[in-house]
Amino acid sequence: MAVRALIFDVFGTLVDWRSGVAREAEQLLAPYAPQLDGGAFADAWRARYGPSMETVRSGARGYVDLDALQAESLPAVLAAFGIDGVPEAVLADLVLAWHRLDAWPEVPDALVRLRAAHLLAPVSNGHVRLMVDLARRNGFTFDAILGAGYSRDYKPKPALYRDAVAALGFSASETLMVAAHSLDLAAAAQHGLATAHIARPREHGPAGGETAPGVPVTYAAADLADLARQLGV
Amino acid sequence: MAVRALIFDVFGTLVDWRSGVAREAEQLLAPYAPQLDGGAFADAWRARYGPSMETVRSGARGYVDLDALQAESLPAVLAAFGIDGVPEAVLADLVLAWHRLDAWPEVPDALVRLRAAHLLAPVSNGHVRLMVDLARRNGFTFDAILGAGYSRDYKPKPALYRDAVAALGFSASETLMVAAHSLDLAAAAQHGLATAHIARPREHGPAGGETAPGVPVTYAAADLADLARQLGV
Repeated sequence: MAVRALIFDVFGTLVDWRSGVAREAEQLLAPYAPQLDGGAFADAWRARYGPSMETVRSGARGYVDLDALQAESLPAVLAAFGIDGVPEAVLADLVLAWHRLDAWPEVPDALVRLRAAHLLAPVSNGHVRLMVDLARRNGFTFDAILGAGYSRDYKPKPALYRDAVAALGFSASETLMVAAHSLDLAAAAQHGLATAHIARPREHGPAGGETAPGVPVTYAAADLADLARQLGV
Repeated sequence: MAVRALIFDVFGTLVDWRSGVAREAEQLLAPYAPQLDGGAFADAWRARYGPSMETVRSGARGYVDLDALQAESLPAVLAAFGIDGVPEAVLADLVLAWHRLDAWPEVPDALVRLRAAHLLAPVSNGHVRLMVDLARRNGFTFDAILGAGYSRDYKPKPALYRDAVAALGFSASETLMVAAHSLDLAAAAQHGLATAHIARPREHGPAGGETAPGVPVTYAAADLADLARQLGV
């Protein structure tokens, strides 16, 4: 079946979360932690992302958005780095660092090419406003914002993939999940979606990133421009 | 409070549903009803829209999208016009007439102006794919698609207004509901939203349309370009 719609993971796949969070943390925390290693701080904060989402995925509590989860995680990250005395307003601004991330270099142009032939929507664990802010900052044009906000749950729960397919109205096999993370693609494939892996060897900075899919995929691409070429756009 | 985000009713406010449905009905039903008055057909179909949505709003059944409701209403409309023998494929295409409607003339340019200064999202009783198709056809760029698909219910239920405010992340008073229908604006105002009425004197063809708000509103505009002027963009 021809691909009609592309749905995207965002953090790591379309935007470079580590560099952006590192930059913002170093700037905002400079008065409280002048020697901060922003990359290490970003890694530590990101490490709490999975467990914090699990409190929602497990049903232990109702849906709360990623800003709320990141805000909850932040005090422990600060403590781990020995940082204290940060005013509430700075903490709130630091949570918004996740709204101020830059795209990987080829992404904006590749999205324009892809959108000429396909419907595009993020299916991220980020909520609507977070996606809107990243899209505005980076010049992304999406047809819709799906994902955690739309489904009130977090990937890899089935609702996110199923709701995205239903919302865009093509068959699952005409809907292509695009991600730099094999676990996300494996979950999408379980629901019949086509899958595209994007190599992001620098996602985790010195710790690397997935250079190739660890699961069977429909497309494996070096970057989003390569995926566009493989799709013939 | 300054307006930060605009949310839009779509059928009647941004697009001319009556002319579009009339055109499509006359074309698609020509072999079965050569003398069809497409405008009257559109009116009859539209008249069933409220009662059909009420089956969801009342909780009598779970959320089904507007395509499903329009498809359910269609046989009775055809019967009322004495039309029979229409193949299933034509009926399915006729339901998609609602995806092929044209904007009121000033809307595309006005949305471009408004988007330079505000976040924009439809909050329609149409679902995601329906909004996406109307946006693509008419060159609308939205930041997100909210409304019935996002809230799994129909206006004027509170969830649609509350969910839209929460998704865009501004206060209710910074969020402007834009509609050609006073009932929609009255409901939005109940939840603290700012409101803008757009006059659409030809929405219902010879039967007219709202030329002015019937309830107190924040802005009353002759069309969407006038609203943009009033908002200073």
